[in-house]
Amino acid sequence: MKTQVCIIGAGPAGLLLGHLLRAEGVDCVVLERQTPDYVLGRIRAGVLETITVSLMERLGLDARMKAEGLWHDGVNLADGERLIHIDMADLVGNRVMVYGQTELTRDLMDAAPERDLEVIYEAADVALHDVESDAPYVTYTSDGTQHRIDARFIAGCDGFHGPSRKAIPASVGQEFERVYPFGWLGILADVPPCNHELIYANHERGFALASMRSNTRSRYYVDVPLTDKVEDWSDDRLWDELAIRLGPDAAAHITRGPAIEKSIAPLRSFVFAPMRHGSLLLCGDSAHIVPPTGAKGLNLAASDVHYAAAALTGFFNKSSNEGIVAYSDTALARVWKSERFSWTLTKLMHRFPEDGPFERAMQVAELDYIATSRAAQTSIAENYVGLPV
Amino acid sequence: MKTQVCIIGAGPAGLLLGHLLRAEGVDCVVLERQTPDYVLGRIRAGVLETITVSLMERLGLDARMKAEGLWHDGVNLADGERLIHIDMADLVGNRVMVYGQTELTRDLMDAAPERDLEVIYEAADVALHDVESDAPYVTYTSDGTQHRIDARFIAGCDGFHGPSRKAIPASVGQEFERVYPFGWLGILADVPPCNHELIYANHERGFALASMRSNTRSRYYVDVPLTDKVEDWSDDRLWDELAIRLGPDAAAHITRGPAIEKSIAPLRSFVFAPMRHGSLLLCGDSAHIVPPTGAKGLNLAASDVHYAAAALTGFFNKSSNEGIVAYSDTALARVWKSERFSWTLTKLMHRFPEDGPFERAMQVAELDYIATSRAAQTSIAENYVGLPV
Repeated sequence: MKTQVCIIGAGPAGLLLGHLLRAEGVDCVVLERQTPDYVLGRIRAGVLETITVSLMERLGLDARMKAEGLWHDGVNLADGERLIHIDMADLVGNRVMVYGQTELTRDLMDAAPERDLEVIYEAADVALHDVESDAPYVTYTSDGTQHRIDARFIAGCDGFHGPSRKAIPASVGQEFERVYPFGWLGILADVPPCNHELIYANHERGFALASMRSNTRSRYYVDVPLTDKVEDWSDDRLWDELAIRLGPDAAAHITRGPAIEKSIAPLRSFVFAPMRHGSLLLCGDSAHIVPPTGAKGLNLAASDVHYAAAALTGFFNKSSNEGIVAYSDTALARVWKSERFSWTLTKLMHRFPEDGPFERAMQVAELDYIATSRAAQTSIAENYVGLPV
Repeated sequence: MKTQVCIIGAGPAGLLLGHLLRAEGVDCVVLERQTPDYVLGRIRAGVLETITVSLMERLGLDARMKAEGLWHDGVNLADGERLIHIDMADLVGNRVMVYGQTELTRDLMDAAPERDLEVIYEAADVALHDVESDAPYVTYTSDGTQHRIDARFIAGCDGFHGPSRKAIPASVGQEFERVYPFGWLGILADVPPCNHELIYANHERGFALASMRSNTRSRYYVDVPLTDKVEDWSDDRLWDELAIRLGPDAAAHITRGPAIEKSIAPLRSFVFAPMRHGSLLLCGDSAHIVPPTGAKGLNLAASDVHYAAAALTGFFNKSSNEGIVAYSDTALARVWKSERFSWTLTKLMHRFPEDGPFERAMQVAELDYIATSRAAQTSIAENYVGLPV
């Protein structure tokens, strides 16, 4: 098979890119290792920045999102008894959309056939070849047969563990990494959320986040030692812990319910640079990971895809190489700023084992400062809704 | 001898407090271990916030400061080739005054006799007694004779190493501390500054600061390992290093000259809480130390003194205990915010041995973000000119 762009990975990044390319008449094929149901079963983020919402609008795939999603004008930081409200609508005239990554992926998946976006699921043993040349190709196995797709470009949208980044020789790339000494234990439950906006809490027992996917589906997190297992946390124990860490006001409004999903995810900051090597462009988690504090992961993938789609359509439709050449620097400039915000918010809202009383006092002072400074609140708000693309 | 307030230490904090109390008719005596020349010989900060300027204005001791000091509308952060200008006048409608601590101390010292502010220099073996009671007293030795001053309150303005803080039992206080893995090597020289505003630089070889005391006297710093000695740094070596770290634009305007003073100061963050114990009030460095990045030390002493003077005059002139009771919490609220700013700016502008490539990338990302965000610049500006008292 021959195509213009072979996209590896049918998560939100790969599907968004595929739709954007097809909308501009660029040929592409998306290869996915898993089944559609497996892809939809991954429970991930649910807070969309302007860039992500606007890509769905541009594709005309925003109807269900607009009908079912929730606009949030603000977000809250909690510290003991206090709730610091960051009024994004007032501070920066913008807001975020709460809409599960699963739902967004489903919208993109459902629209693929009618828009001639070919997605090949259950493609095993995906391997990238000759990525440094102008004629790269991808091989994979399906139903026991090996297949080959020749393309002009390959887009690596296959996440942190996918083969795309690994196709770039170690000698040309640099990895930046920070791992964190805790994980997030998350619970998804069909209960109304305890608050109409998100609450990020820094309690003496640790971090907690009250989030949601809809008005009837809640998502909560606490941070736990990396040695903890999901089995250590019964639903009751987790609800009890959330009630303590989120503080009495939020606790009074928590509705408990059985877990639909419960899992522990490690936290990592990771950047691979450059994000392009020859004819291979990396998008999203294949090039960078942020800790989930601040909900930047999916949105960073969306801005990568925005730049990559512009670069690729410029190449095929306007014979311009400019966007391709600039892609890595352009995407990384925004990636680094989101990495910074995610890292900063993670440090502010978690207790680190290596921190002493001075560092803890600095967290309190930072929260005190944020509570009283419009400039500090504006800085958080502009990052939370998403810096300009 | 009997007085209402015995002030320990005739640095800027002690003298400012003495003048403010005398202006309101409160009796006080200032005890100083050193000679006036020794006090004036200590080379310290030179950037005054609004609170410090306004206290000098309130005392009517601002004539020389206004004539010789330099108003600075902005401050600069440098990173390699780049200069990020923080335009405080535009961002927050305020500015800072560059006027050496030595000059401010001299103005306060010179005005003492005419304003009936008694300062006893060369008071040795100063000791505080019965600070928990309503009748504390101070003993000291002068000309071989022991003296005693009975007071209603004692104000500890005697710096980090003075006896005041140590008069508070360890069981009632808590210390918060962070030491830094480098010191600042400073040079004072009678040469014109290289730039009309300050430049804080984060260069791959380390930190540098271009500062000044006047249009003809410059103050520069580089950070050095704590194992370095002043003797390791000839004037030439230091000027060479400054030219590299401050970047080519600043280097082109550096005028070299012999050092009037050259010394290495360690960096420390330190807070002692509470700042009052019984009849003893701590002001300035006796209760807290900030790293010099951001020039908060003298200004924090000034805001402490502002609160202490109000509390003490309220006590003696309005029979109100309220200010005394609230003093520690009121002063500490501002102290913590300045500690936070000094710590944050120190972390942003220095290379730490424990940092890896990710942490360095976060410094670059933070500077990139600051360079493009008015909110981030406003946050720096409002802290630099001084948060409201």
